[in-house]
Amino acid sequence: MARPTLSLLFLLSFFLLAFSFNAEDPELKTCKHHCRQQRQFSESEKRECELRCEEYARERREYNPRREGEERERWEGERNPYFFDRESFQHRIRSEHGSVRVLERFTQRSELLRWIEKYRLGIMEANPNAFVLPHHLDADAVFYVIQGCGTLNVLREENNRESFSIRKGDIVRIRAGSMVYLINHDDNEKLYIAKILRTVSSPGVLREYFAVGGENPQSFLRSFSSEILEAAFKTRRESLEKLFRHEKGAIVKASKEQIRAMRRRSSEGGSRWPFGESSSTFNLLNKRPSISSRHGQLFDADSGDYRELEDLDIQVSFANITGGSMMAPFYNTRSAKFAIIVGGEGYFEMACPHVSGEQEEGERSERGEREERETEERESQEKRISYQKIKSQLSHGSAFLIPAGHPVAIVASGNENLQLVCFEIKAKDNRRLFIAGKDSILKQLEKEAKELSFNAPAKEVDEWLGRQEEKAFMAGPEHRREKRIPVNSILDFAGF
Amino acid sequence: MARPTLSLLFLLSFFLLAFSFNAEDPELKTCKHHCRQQRQFSESEKRECELRCEEYARERREYNPRREGEERERWEGERNPYFFDRESFQHRIRSEHGSVRVLERFTQRSELLRWIEKYRLGIMEANPNAFVLPHHLDADAVFYVIQGCGTLNVLREENNRESFSIRKGDIVRIRAGSMVYLINHDDNEKLYIAKILRTVSSPGVLREYFAVGGENPQSFLRSFSSEILEAAFKTRRESLEKLFRHEKGAIVKASKEQIRAMRRRSSEGGSRWPFGESSSTFNLLNKRPSISSRHGQLFDADSGDYRELEDLDIQVSFANITGGSMMAPFYNTRSAKFAIIVGGEGYFEMACPHVSGEQEEGERSERGEREERETEERESQEKRISYQKIKSQLSHGSAFLIPAGHPVAIVASGNENLQLVCFEIKAKDNRRLFIAGKDSILKQLEKEAKELSFNAPAKEVDEWLGRQEEKAFMAGPEHRREKRIPVNSILDFAGF
Amino acid sequence: MARPTLSLLFLLSFFLLAFSFNAEDPELKTCKHHCRQQRQFSESEKRECELRCEEYARERREYNPRREGEERERWEGERNPYFFDRESFQHRIRSEHGSVRVLERFTQRSELLRWIEKYRLGIMEANPNAFVLPHHLDADAVFYVIQGCGTLNVLREENNRESFSIRKGDIVRIRAGSMVYLINHDDNEKLYIAKILRTVSSPGVLREYFAVGGENPQSFLRSFSSEILEAAFKTRRESLEKLFRHEKGAIVKASKEQIRAMRRRSSEGGSRWPFGESSSTFNLLNKRPSISSRHGQLFDADSGDYRELEDLDIQVSFANITGGSMMAPFYNTRSAKFAIIVGGEGYFEMACPHVSGEQEEGERSERGEREERETEERESQEKRISYQKIKSQLSHGSAFLIPAGHPVAIVASGNENLQLVCFEIKAKDNRRLFIAGKDSILKQLEKEAKELSFNAPAKEVDEWLGRQEEKAFMAGPEHRREKRIPVNSILDFAGF
Repeated sequence: MARPTLSLLFLLSFFLLAFSFNAEDPELKTCKHHCRQQRQFSESEKRECELRCEEYARERREYNPRREGEERERWEGERNPYFFDRESFQHRIRSEHGSVRVLERFTQRSELLRWIEKYRLGIMEANPNAFVLPHHLDADAVFYVIQGCGTLNVLREENNRESFSIRKGDIVRIRAGSMVYLINHDDNEKLYIAKILRTVSSPGVLREYFAVGGENPQSFLRSFSSEILEAAFKTRRESLEKLFRHEKGAIVKASKEQIRAMRRRSSEGGSRWPFGESSSTFNLLNKRPSISSRHGQLFDADSGDYRELEDLDIQVSFANITGGSMMAPFYNTRSAKFAIIVGGEGYFEMACPHVSGEQEEGERSERGEREERETEERESQEKRISYQKIKSQLSHGSAFLIPAGHPVAIVASGNENLQLVCFEIKAKDNRRLFIAGKDSILKQLEKEAKELSFNAPAKEVDEWLGRQEEKAFMAGPEHRREKRIPVNSILDFAGF
Repeated sequence: MARPTLSLLFLLSFFLLAFSFNAEDPELKTCKHHCRQQRQFSESEKRECELRCEEYARERREYNPRREGEERERWEGERNPYFFDRESFQHRIRSEHGSVRVLERFTQRSELLRWIEKYRLGIMEANPNAFVLPHHLDADAVFYVIQGCGTLNVLREENNRESFSIRKGDIVRIRAGSMVYLINHDDNEKLYIAKILRTVSSPGVLREYFAVGGENPQSFLRSFSSEILEAAFKTRRESLEKLFRHEKGAIVKASKEQIRAMRRRSSEGGSRWPFGESSSTFNLLNKRPSISSRHGQLFDADSGDYRELEDLDIQVSFANITGGSMMAPFYNTRSAKFAIIVGGEGYFEMACPHVSGEQEEGERSERGEREERETEERESQEKRISYQKIKSQLSHGSAFLIPAGHPVAIVASGNENLQLVCFEIKAKDNRRLFIAGKDSILKQLEKEAKELSFNAPAKEVDEWLGRQEEKAFMAGPEHRREKRIPVNSILDFAGF
Repeated sequence: MARPTLSLLFLLSFFLLAFSFNAEDPELKTCKHHCRQQRQFSESEKRECELRCEEYARERREYNPRREGEERERWEGERNPYFFDRESFQHRIRSEHGSVRVLERFTQRSELLRWIEKYRLGIMEANPNAFVLPHHLDADAVFYVIQGCGTLNVLREENNRESFSIRKGDIVRIRAGSMVYLINHDDNEKLYIAKILRTVSSPGVLREYFAVGGENPQSFLRSFSSEILEAAFKTRRESLEKLFRHEKGAIVKASKEQIRAMRRRSSEGGSRWPFGESSSTFNLLNKRPSISSRHGQLFDADSGDYRELEDLDIQVSFANITGGSMMAPFYNTRSAKFAIIVGGEGYFEMACPHVSGEQEEGERSERGEREERETEERESQEKRISYQKIKSQLSHGSAFLIPAGHPVAIVASGNENLQLVCFEIKAKDNRRLFIAGKDSILKQLEKEAKELSFNAPAKEVDEWLGRQEEKAFMAGPEHRREKRIPVNSILDFAGF
């Protein structure tokens, strides 16, 4: 078979996956027209340019990348279950001094995600000098300090208060039910904390309990009857009312004096900041990155670094992908990875087998289940192993999920670094395996396995696998496209 | 703001939570009338009396406390998912010599309780000299002997039978699938055992297997075909039939001679009663109580006391609250606590965040789910953290559930002690934190945190927190009410 | 009561369990007629013969034993949730050189099986000289080599490939996400592997990921966009296309030279075959059987034998039941056992409590649940403990499930040995307890417990329990029937 025919087949197979290919798409026509008009292009370059136009058009139809003001992207009529835009984080607490936003329950997004239903992701923002009122949660939590610094106090047992300073890169595990309060003790910088929560009772049902408060948050004490409160505190109701008239919300502003006192106490109290180390926190960015090159860095902390992660079986990592670079296609053998974008822009692509079929299965109505059964039985006669691409634009505040086994690549667009805070569950025994690059798992195939797998001489396969000498992080696709698609075409696209 | 206005606000906020406040309520009118007629009352005392009337009326409407002959209390049109009256325990085994009753499956009560679906609670009663036929369960079990004494035999592997005497306060763990039989060897006293069961197969589906029996219980051997039984036992069917014609039920009466022989054998066989200790059981009441005062005692046993509890991650405790006293508001950081009332009367109050919303979520009909999603999305714009009170009367044989994080107070009414057997799951690493009393977790707040949380001078907060000097158990609310509401008003209420 | 009356009662109780007893059944009439015509029979033998006819007829109605060409047996209008015929294994991969078949998801069979939903069973067949392309799964796997020999390669981390020879009886654990390929290096014999899979993400949703391939299997790399692939591999799309045009399927034929090279490398590379032992595999058949007699052998391997089974909590066993013998009624205290028939024919009988009620509960429609609740509440008033027989014919390629606590007997029909590969989950702390035979758990009952349980003198019970002197495996029922039912009756039955 000649090469052009092959290319054509390759493309066609892609188009078959597209939903409804409309050959009359006017934007596609314009794009192709631009290609043919490029005088500096050879014939094959013109053809390639047109192919790019088609690919671009197809992607636009398929994934409908989200833009400002547009409605949420659809996942075959549903939402893509693996991507969460900024709006998927919903306010739990909000005041003029800060907020806590928590990602919707995973089962609300899709029945497909029931297996991670007990986890929630959250983002806390505290303004300069803000104080977050004491509260407890019915969930274990791991905090990662994205930005800023503050003092965190944890009341976990009687006659014991732990106080420690936190700053960018710190990981802190908070045990379920611990009463927690914190201050941003900086006068200028906001304090941002990303967190993963693992509920201990009803999976994914997260509850905040404020012992103090007025109308919002209400103190849980107000739901006890007066007779119990009066007996418990030996105090008449009128006096109690005075103590629960707090009307300023769950995040309030502390005075300079208050902050100074609390900060001083925390640094005296055996906490590590600014000197020393405690076992209560771990600074991820102080650790040597596990991977580092001009294209990016990856910092990992597991229970070996921070013992408090052990029983949760969680790993925390921070990826910093240089603008224009990418993280090569890889997969986790066992972990599911939650990533929150904390800086930059880009996109990820993930190979996902059989998503449509599974989704039907997840939504099990009586009738649906029966039909599905029949479908699957029929399909079993002509099973075909194929994959669907999942692609989403990434920007500050969005998040995505990579289940175990799923190959994924992450690309940093433009000049800014793409920064991700990642929480990986089922971390024990997990391996991160790269498909491309210096460490490609494919290099370990035996000579004969290469021949049989690629239907090509092993030497040719080796030559191919050897080309990319970077490891994990490498130059992204951006420059290549710019070199080969005329700039005005791209501008046209942008104007769609 | 003047104090009366504040009081009013406080009350109004309570009334807003009530379902439908009917100002024309004739009972309320009568009650208030009584208040105004108390000549010995000052004006403020009269006003307080009226407030009590309103509160009482509201509670009556909201919680509709259960009385003899009334129908089960409603939980916003459903049943309160955290309280289980005596009738919720259903007979599994019943004969004239005893019974085994098991609490309904938690998912039958509410989808909200799916997370504890693999647990069941049970109560066994064996009359004097009763013998419970050998059987096994597909569940792990922890027994607590509420009353009486007996001999328990456990057949767990070939050529091995464990026999041990049991008496009030004993904890015994029975491994799933062990063949068990027991006798009440007392001539007069009933043997009562509370148990928690953790199913090993289908969550919450509990199955009893009797190897012996006739019509009821049927022996499971009778469901094998004759040909297999004849080959297995080298016995003709007619002879087999004779052995499985037992018609006396699962709990039968043993003769004095049989009891004497079994009892003697158990005390010879290395079991501890009446001397010595074995590792097979643990007596909770022999241990020093973890909390003890004139207001109550608390006995706790975890895997440190009794290793057999370790893999189940269960703690057993016994609370004995003095009549008229109460257990101060507290919460468990991680455990869910099942409590069974084994003596006395009283009530519990629990603060429960957002119950209605969650329940909708639990019952996920297609339409329901969609509506809920929209509701939650809308709500996310104006999230308000508040709590609902759960209150139920407690009496002998009823049970309740306290999930992790939920603050609860338990009050013993009248003169009799309120006694509770408690099984706590997810016991490892759990802490019991009190909100009120000498050990109040609130005392550990820093000075500035108190100021910011209560919007009051720290000194005032400290003074308030210091008033109650009792720890965990303290005087209950009963006397206070009696002192301040005229007796005839109360009588009127009782006559409603 | 006289013996005949008792027999009658016994039979009647059986008939009451039958669905609809039709006294006019013509086949039953014919059978009984044959009995009465046997002149060599005594009156009691004639009566027994008639009883057998009735029993046979009842079983035919109840269980409708599956025959060639008949439709699947029904489970009260549903499918028996514990038996899986050969067709329940569905093709995932199929080529002319081999196949991988995986058992349907357990929840597809019945909601009753949700508790084992994360497990799947599979069978791999590779023709002589076949090569299975590199792939990974999002599931942990345990392989058992049923027949044949080959070389298995596992790529689990960068710069590390494990290669080991496998042969009949070998157990290998493959960690989730490991890239695996294997060859059958024999020129004549097929390679058969049974496997249990435990999914790590969505329970029971199993996904194969091929890094290589063409149309089927598709390489997951093809779902990345060209721009990412070109950047990752520093290769133009046209060259990439060449490497992913493999059109031969997931199982291909290797050349003699390729096999020789791969086989040599695996035996050099520290793997054990044909000499030595590695810790990576364990040969079950090299171990001394835990039970062995002329009636059968049982081989067991747990984490003590093969450490890799520990975290999965799985035990692997192989039972070889001599033709005409049976495995005596027994139950597992904690494990659920999956058995795959790999040789011979036979049947199993299992006692199953309350199956119908539970199934209703499993299928929880709104209305169904409410009705069930009422039913259960009513039933609680007159609870009766009884069991239903589950019986299925077993033949090569079928499978069945024995949940914990369920007593079961397995019979090898005819002359051929019945061979079963078994995977037992929740293996830790499990005991296999026999009801009949030398090790019968019933022998451990005390004298008085025997009297009270069987309502018969202990001596009589002992005499009965002592008759069967074989242990675990014993003579099956086949001969007995042949001796006592006239041959022509049986022929008549066969002609039904």
